[in-house]
Amino acid sequence: MKFIDGLKNASKKNNSLLCIGLDVDLNKIPKQHSSIFGFNKSIIDATKDLVCAYKPNIAFYEMHGIKGIEALIQTIDYIHKFDIPVILDAKRGDIGNSSAAYAKAVFEVYKADAVTVSPYMGYDSVKPFIDYQDRGVFVLCLTSNPGAKDFQPPVYKEVAKKFSSAGLVVGATKPEELKEIRRIAPNALLLIPGVGAQGGDLGSIVKIGGKNIIINSSRSIIYADDPRKAAQTLRDQINEKIV
Amino acid sequence: MKFIDGLKNASKKNNSLLCIGLDVDLNKIPKQHSSIFGFNKSIIDATKDLVCAYKPNIAFYEMHGIKGIEALIQTIDYIHKFDIPVILDAKRGDIGNSSAAYAKAVFEVYKADAVTVSPYMGYDSVKPFIDYQDRGVFVLCLTSNPGAKDFQPPVYKEVAKKFSSAGLVVGATKPEELKEIRRIAPNALLLIPGVGAQGGDLGSIVKIGGKNIIINSSRSIIYADDPRKAAQTLRDQINEKIV
Repeated sequence: MKFIDGLKNASKKNNSLLCIGLDVDLNKIPKQHSSIFGFNKSIIDATKDLVCAYKPNIAFYEMHGIKGIEALIQTIDYIHKFDIPVILDAKRGDIGNSSAAYAKAVFEVYKADAVTVSPYMGYDSVKPFIDYQDRGVFVLCLTSNPGAKDFQPPVYKEVAKKFSSAGLVVGATKPEELKEIRRIAPNALLLIPGVGAQGGDLGSIVKIGGKNIIINSSRSIIYADDPRKAAQTLRDQINEKIV
Repeated sequence: MKFIDGLKNASKKNNSLLCIGLDVDLNKIPKQHSSIFGFNKSIIDATKDLVCAYKPNIAFYEMHGIKGIEALIQTIDYIHKFDIPVILDAKRGDIGNSSAAYAKAVFEVYKADAVTVSPYMGYDSVKPFIDYQDRGVFVLCLTSNPGAKDFQPPVYKEVAKKFSSAGLVVGATKPEELKEIRRIAPNALLLIPGVGAQGGDLGSIVKIGGKNIIINSSRSIIYADDPRKAAQTLRDQINEKIV
């Protein structure tokens, strides 16, 4: 199934624009879980009827080497049992033949349905990912970390323009810029991190972004005392803001 | 040993500014090699007295999944037997805690001596790599692929300014811009790909860059009929240009 159709199906079925980021830090997880996959499984089991997608960040798996990568593959495989798409947060991007190798890794080895990519090296560095027509691509546009101000301001509108038919990553902390990006790319699917732990305002985001958005939250859900309750609350808060 | 000292030692011992990119495509390697590591070993054995560093691009290993990552670790381990530093071409970059996870993967799991990173997300996305003070960091500044013109022109000088005390990746195909970057960052160690297959002019690069450079070539050496001869020729050509 195409990523976009899988996303719509899961979103409709679960009445949700919420994506949960599976950024597992072994030092932070409760003691009853001895493995990354065990922890992820508990989160997925508790929230699989509340989300439109899951987003593991591969950095947290790579840091554990071979075992981490195995846990990532196992996690993606498990999520697929519930017909929920997986956005692999990988922020890859390289010259053409290297990006083609990354695209193969992400889509064929890890079997992700969509991926985040970095635009710094330009269009030809992103194209090998876009060439997988049944998968999704989210290009970093304007991020929510402090360093976003360093190099993104002169180019993020150009990024939005060039990739207006792909997905875009736009931080939740910048409503004015989000408005501008939505104007430039009215039909782009926006992946919006930075709600929750990083403190973006939900009301303005949903008002500006419309329904063609995915709102991601990681730490504020997976490390909550009751992850299911945290997910349900955030999903419902998002839905309340939709006019 | 610190990366910079290991690099200087290897460079002095082998009288070389040449780095060989180990970007192994299993479809292109000679039939007598049945594995990535086997092929890499043959290249390393043939060229280890001619280089200052090796640069595997992790994309070509990730595309083969667990086996590829194992071959990468095995390759880095083998190179270290000859006291030659490894620059892992990974182009990573993410928000702080994710970049810290990537830095751990690159330096502690894969045991690379240096890494390439993408600056798009700004200073805080690069800092976790720089914090490993005994390792090297090369920030993408101006690359040699066609897409480099898309988003880099308005910011590459800012990147050079912000990371003038780290290493910088500068494509060999742009001597005018290389001159500008060298002016902004007179002491930065420059990693220069794009000689050979991509056709940059060696004479102007060495004249502008000076001796504090590493010139990388991948495909024009590893797929040559005689990789040792190709490496020796390029090393000597570089040395001839040094005044």
